[in-house]
Formats: sequence, structure tokens, C-alpha cells
Amino acid sequence: MAKEKLVKEITSMDEDFAQWYTDVVIKAELTDYSSVRGCMIIRPYGYAIWENIQRIMNDMFIKTGHENVYMPMFIPESLLEKEKDHVEGFAPEVAWVTHGGNEKLEERLCVRPTSETLFCDHYKNIIHSYRDLPKLYNQWCSVVRWEKTTRPFLRSREFLWQEGHTIHATAEEAEKETIQMLNVYADFAENVLAMPVVKGVKTEKERFAGAQDTYTIEALMHDGKALQSGTSHFFGDGFARAFGIQFTDADNELKYPFQTSWGTTTRLIGAVIMTHGDNEGLVLPPMIAPIQVVVIPIASHKAGVLEKSQEITEKLQKICRVKSDTTDRSPGWKFAEYEMKGVPLRLEIGPKDIENNQCVLVRRDTREKIFVSLDELETKVPELLKTVQQALYDRALKRRSEMTYVAHDLDEIKEIADTKPGFIKSMWCGSRECEEKLKEVAGISSRCVPFEQENLGDKCVCCGKPAKKMIYWGKAY
Amino acid sequence: MAKEKLVKEITSMDEDFAQWYTDVVIKAELTDYSSVRGCMIIRPYGYAIWENIQRIMNDMFIKTGHENVYMPMFIPESLLEKEKDHVEGFAPEVAWVTHGGNEKLEERLCVRPTSETLFCDHYKNIIHSYRDLPKLYNQWCSVVRWEKTTRPFLRSREFLWQEGHTIHATAEEAEKETIQMLNVYADFAENVLAMPVVKGVKTEKERFAGAQDTYTIEALMHDGKALQSGTSHFFGDGFARAFGIQFTDADNELKYPFQTSWGTTTRLIGAVIMTHGDNEGLVLPPMIAPIQVVVIPIASHKAGVLEKSQEITEKLQKICRVKSDTTDRSPGWKFAEYEMKGVPLRLEIGPKDIENNQCVLVRRDTREKIFVSLDELETKVPELLKTVQQALYDRALKRRSEMTYVAHDLDEIKEIADTKPGFIKSMWCGSRECEEKLKEVAGISSRCVPFEQENLGDKCVCCGKPAKKMIYWGKAY
Repeated sequence: MAKEKLVKEITSMDEDFAQWYTDVVIKAELTDYSSVRGCMIIRPYGYAIWENIQRIMNDMFIKTGHENVYMPMFIPESLLEKEKDHVEGFAPEVAWVTHGGNEKLEERLCVRPTSETLFCDHYKNIIHSYRDLPKLYNQWCSVVRWEKTTRPFLRSREFLWQEGHTIHATAEEAEKETIQMLNVYADFAENVLAMPVVKGVKTEKERFAGAQDTYTIEALMHDGKALQSGTSHFFGDGFARAFGIQFTDADNELKYPFQTSWGTTTRLIGAVIMTHGDNEGLVLPPMIAPIQVVVIPIASHKAGVLEKSQEITEKLQKICRVKSDTTDRSPGWKFAEYEMKGVPLRLEIGPKDIENNQCVLVRRDTREKIFVSLDELETKVPELLKTVQQALYDRALKRRSEMTYVAHDLDEIKEIADTKPGFIKSMWCGSRECEEKLKEVAGISSRCVPFEQENLGDKCVCCGKPAKKMIYWGKAY
Repeated sequence: MAKEKLVKEITSMDEDFAQWYTDVVIKAELTDYSSVRGCMIIRPYGYAIWENIQRIMNDMFIKTGHENVYMPMFIPESLLEKEKDHVEGFAPEVAWVTHGGNEKLEERLCVRPTSETLFCDHYKNIIHSYRDLPKLYNQWCSVVRWEKTTRPFLRSREFLWQEGHTIHATAEEAEKETIQMLNVYADFAENVLAMPVVKGVKTEKERFAGAQDTYTIEALMHDGKALQSGTSHFFGDGFARAFGIQFTDADNELKYPFQTSWGTTTRLIGAVIMTHGDNEGLVLPPMIAPIQVVVIPIASHKAGVLEKSQEITEKLQKICRVKSDTTDRSPGWKFAEYEMKGVPLRLEIGPKDIENNQCVLVRRDTREKIFVSLDELETKVPELLKTVQQALYDRALKRRSEMTYVAHDLDEIKEIADTKPGFIKSMWCGSRECEEKLKEVAGISSRCVPFEQENLGDKCVCCGKPAKKMIYWGKAY
């Protein structure tokens, strides 16, 4: 009965996907609303997911030679204005600090929406010779973009992220870095978040403000909408020229260095929710789950049950993130609660199990019940966690391929966009006109020109003119 | 010669302590100046120290049952104003956001100087029953206080910190938490930073805005000035009443809960610099040193030297944070560089050493040279790191006790304050008048009434009236 009640509190995802998302985020205690419009409170369970993401991703950054730093959170207006495209892209959506205490500031400061300008200002100070290059920096911080409509994790006025900023002696080296970090993101998305992604390059229209090229990983959510999940930018020497960063090369010539930046955000938590979640709530990939196994004693008033569940918990603590719930709530309530929270494995242990020297493991993703001998627990649990991790990826990949369509002409792409949520692949002539027309007539935007090209004909889906590039389209968050 | 040159670049601490500090911070590449007045750039070497501090301290928080969360960085003006003392204390030094994009905000937002008001706003939403208590939260973030004069790490407009915020059913439980966290800070300062501290309670005059009691750890810097290094506040139910937070207790009565908060900041890095540093630069306690051992090959062009130094580095990587410097700079340059950076142990390995199956370890703190057999390296290095850690603490404790004076009357305390930098202990009647008078006539402020009381007589050092409390005075950062 308790379970019935809890489950009913979540709107069905087929009925209203947006409401389902909001219900999950609040009921699983990932976030809470705050008095600050458009900003979110990240609660312990949500923040623990972010900490797992940070820890694993940070290790990947360090393995690829990056160092963490911290830049100021404010950018003087004059500094933001130094690179023309960049300021045009960001100025309309920044928060401005105008007063310090009771005094009006001489110059307005914006709260960083991204930190290219601050890094450039620093590079100018510390880079003089080719010996000072490359600098491979990253920072974990929060940034602010004054969005009109907001949703927890997906789009909020303040969000947490990491931003990598690197600077190199040659364009080739910087381009290599840009692609390397895109591959790190794709690896992370697929192997840690169990979320398949399409890797590719953004069209000129969708490029980051100030970038020469923007690369992206694009994921498909449960409702068929696309989510841009990480981007990596190649700047050429544009920022270096705007900021006057120069170095003396080994050949004694004064040269401009080349830069990159790349970022992922707490949006990844939104991506996980919408990729793996179901009508009972969250489904978390074991690698980022704050609790990987929840131990629930059954008939815990019976002799020996609490002791055995304690013993099991202590054993498992050495090999995974485990929690035992020994509160006086009913097992049914607990089942629903930890299903809602997306815990990958539930371990039930009752008097009968103890008699048989076994316990029951229940997978969150399939609800499959598996009887396991207590002697085998320490090998079975890690095995099952790996199985669940892989199964989540496989399921998401299968759904994505079922929801990816091919279109050859304008009528076809309009019909698909109207009736079938998902990715649409087509050929494209490369013109911004066709991109804008498809937005207008079919409500879809370009996601990326994927690295893995397929030959779907030789005509642009929109104008029918010759086309050499294959591109992904979709409705996006 | 190279060493000579480098060392000369640091001002002697006896000549000009403030300039010595600035030199160390910049030359050891802990921070860089930024275009944002009063804000600092924390460079990789400085940030790595902060990451070590975070990692170790965060583990201590988790062991004492705390969870990490993230609150918005903005506080609406009306929310800041809810607790009278609190707003009076902080409003004069906050940065105000007045515009989002091109639009003027309906209500100003301040960038958080501290987050009591945000936590209270959240607690009001999530606390209803005694079952919801306690909440033991912490957050790692940056905060802003619009200081007029700033110095890297010690006082800057933006700084990084952790702020714990807890809420409890009873005053006793909250008071216990306040003291527990002060003890965690003292433990951390002494055992991780090798920095002795005095634990005590602040006078009413020095209390945190809105607190019923403020506890502190006070350290003594190399120049005899005091540094408040961490504080823990007991709020009673003042904030709960101001924000209308109530819960139904087990006895079915509606009650106000009790709160605490506690914080430490990047100021701890300043404390480490000024406690352990010397005229050659930084001296880092091994527990937080980003590099614990630097391996420097001598005559590295000779056969086998680079290979052996690589072999040693790989061995040591398994037991400590080690770096080998195989660049083409001279050994002398490298010695000075890593002394400046405060690396606890230098390992020199040359052709002669290899012949003798040994290497030379040089302690940063004492410059003692120790010949160690290569077969014993893996036991000797951790041993020596422990020895250095303890020696730093012992040296700092000895200096503190040599620089702590006792005063019995006004003439004596004035003379000490004028001529002997350090802590001054005395009896105190408890009045704010005497506190203010000592500030005026001797330029010293109260540091704390220490938990470890001593009987230094029965008269107030200032007014001569009966006094029961022993107190610490000093000039403070």
C-alpha cells in the first residue's frame, strides 16, 4: 500500500514527460526549489551524483595532463568586450554587479558566464616563451547565465560545471587537444553514464561565440528530444590576437598561440535522468550511483535478521557504496523509496534467507530477482553492478537506434518531425538558409555533422541541391 | 649562482614581512594578480594545496556524519534582511547584482557573503517533524565580501571556503555540534597543517553577526601577528524564529530547532605560508604538499643517471606524491626552485651515488642531508615525511610559546604590545569597555577566551576590577 501511494505521486512519463521529470527531480530529493528565481538547491543525494561525476571525470583530465586552477568569478565589462563575437554572444545573458557595499562601482562586473576572457588575461601575464607552452588548465566552478525559462539541471540561471582552457604553440596541437577532450567526454558519457552519444561538429550557426569550430556530443532522451551533453571548442588564434598574447618561439619569432576550451555541466545529471529513468523514478548507472546497493532487512524484529543485515553491509562496504535501511518503515515503503532513488541493486534478507544462507538481489533496471548464496556475495555484487551498467547502455542504444530516422526530402523530413520524436539523419548542402528553413517549417535544429558519415544520397534534404555532408537534426532541450 | 639569484628575489622576512609574503605567494606560483581588483587567480600549485586541504577535511566531515549540498550563489535582498543582526553585519560588504542581461531586476540580489539565510530558507521547506532532524550539511564554494584592502589568501573580495550548516532538535545537540566542529578544525590545523592553535570562545564584540556564541581557533604567525583560522557558531533558535522554521516534536508540540554554522577558507594557505615559511620561500607540511619529494638527477648526461632517477621516481610514486625534474636546468637552479616551492624532501642522485647504491635526501625544513641506501628508500621516505611533519609542528609550537607573554596591568600590556610581537595573556573583567580601551591604547584586540584557562591573578589587566576569565590578546590579520 505504501508503495502504491509513493508510485502514484510520480506522473507517468507517457502522460506528461516534463511533469514526470519535475516529479522525479523533487521526489528523489535531487533538488529543491529556492527563493532565488531560476537557481536550484542541489540536495545531498543530487550533489553526491555530481561528486561521483567530478571524481571520475577529474581523474580523466589528470591522466591527459591537465591541472586545476581557480579564476575570479567576476569579469570587468571592458575585459568581456575584448573579443567581439564572444561579447555579442554572452552580454545579453549575464548578471551585472553594479554596487560593492554602499558604493557604486566605477566599472560594472559581470558574474562569469564562461571564463575565456579571464584565462586570456592570465595567459598574457604568464606566457612569454615557447617554454611556457602548452598550459592545460581546468576549473570546477559555478557560472551564471540569465535564462528566461529554467528547469532543474537542464537550464538554470546558475549551474555547476567544469571548463577546460588550454593554450598551445601550434594550431595542430590545439586542434588535437579539442578532439582529444571531445573523445574524453564521449568515453565518459558512454562508459560512466551508460549514455550513447553522437560525436560531431556543430554547424556555423550553432558554434560557440568566438570559436572557429565547436565539437559536440549529442544524446537522445527518452522522449525523443536531443540533449547537447558536452562541447569542445577550437579558437584558432582569435582570442590570442584580441588579448595580445604572444610568445617567442624556438626560432626566435614572436607568434600568437592557439587556444581551446571545453565544458560539461550539471546538465549531465538531467541527461542521466531522462536517458535511464522510468515510471517508478530514477534509474542510476552503478558507476555514479551514490548508493549502489541498499540492504533491506525483512521481518527485522525476528532474531538474527538485523545482525545478519549488518554483517552483510559491513562486508559490502569494502567493495561498493552500500547503505542499509534499518528504520521502522515497512519493507514495501523502502522498496518504493529506493526504486524512486534509482539504486541499482536491492538486497533483501529475511529469516528464511538466513536459514538457506542466501539473500535476494533485485535489479532496479529489469526488476529481476536473483537468489545469491551469502558465500558468493562479494563476487556476485560487483558482477551484477557491471551487468546493470552494460544493460543500461545497451537499452539506451537500442532505443536511440529505433528512434533515429532517415529523411531524403523536405516532405519526408517534415512528416517525420511532426510524427516521430527522435534523431533525423539526412544529407545537407551546408547552407545556413536550409538550416533556418528546417527550423521554421519542421521545428528542428541541426545537432551536428557526425564524425561517422553515411552516404544517404547526394541531395540536400531541404533545397535538393548537391550535398556531401550527412547531418543529424532534432528537437532539442 | 643561479640559486643566489633566485633567493635574492625574495625579500627577507626580517626586513619586510609583508613584502616577503607577497614575494613568496607570487614567486612560488601560488597566485597571480588579476584584472579584477581584490580577486585572486589561484594557480595550479596553489590550487593543488587547496585540493589536498579539501580532500582531508572533507573526509573528516563525512566521518562526523555530514553531507555536501549546493545552495544558490545569490541571496535576494529581502531574504538577507530576515535576521536583523545578520544583515547589519553583512550588508555593508556585499556585492549587489542589479541587472540580468539588459533588464533591471525587480529585487536586488547579493552575491552570498555566507549562506545562513539560504540554508534557513531551505530548512523551512524540508523540516516538518523531529524525524527530519538533524540535518548535517556542508558546502564547498566561493563567497564574496567587498573588502577595501586585500591580500592574497588572507583577505580577498572573493575567496574559496567550506561552510557547514546544521540544524538540530535541541540546544544541547547544537552546542555539542559547534564544539565538535571546532575540535575538528583544531585537529586539522595541528595534525595536517602542523600549526598549533588556541581554542576558545570569542568575546561578544567579536561574535559572528547573528550568533549566540562564536568559537575560534587562533594561530600565531611568524611575525607575531594572530590569525583567526576557523570559526564555529552556535545560533540558538534565533535564525529559526526569524525564518519561521518549526517542527513537530515526538511529544507532538510545535518547536523551534537550533542551528550552527562553521567555516574555514583559503586563508588556511596564508596561515601555512606565514607559520612555516622562511627566507628561501615556502615550507610545506608533507600532508598538504602537492609534491612531497622532488627527484633531481645530478650529472644527468652521465650513463645510467636518468634511468636510475626514473626507476626511483616510479618506486616512490606508489607511496607518496613525487615529481622528477629532468629538464636541462642546472641542479643549483632546481635546488633553489623547489626550496622556494617548499617541497619537504629533495632527492639527489648522481653517478657516485649509483655506484654506492645510495642517494641523498635533503630536508627542506632543516637542510639536513641524509644518505639513504636505495634498498631502504621505500621505508625511509615515509618515515622522513612524518619526521618533517612533526618537526614543523614542534618548531611552530616552540616559537608560539616563546612569543606568548603575560601581562598583569595596563602599563605592562602597553609595553608588551609596543615592543614584543606575539600573543598576550591576561585576566579580563569581561567588559566591552576594557576591550575597546586596549584596542585604543595598545592597538590589540581580543583573540579568544581559551578553553584552557590559567589563573594569572584576580584583577582585570585594564580596569583592575575583579576578573575571573583569562583571555588572549594580539594584533591580528
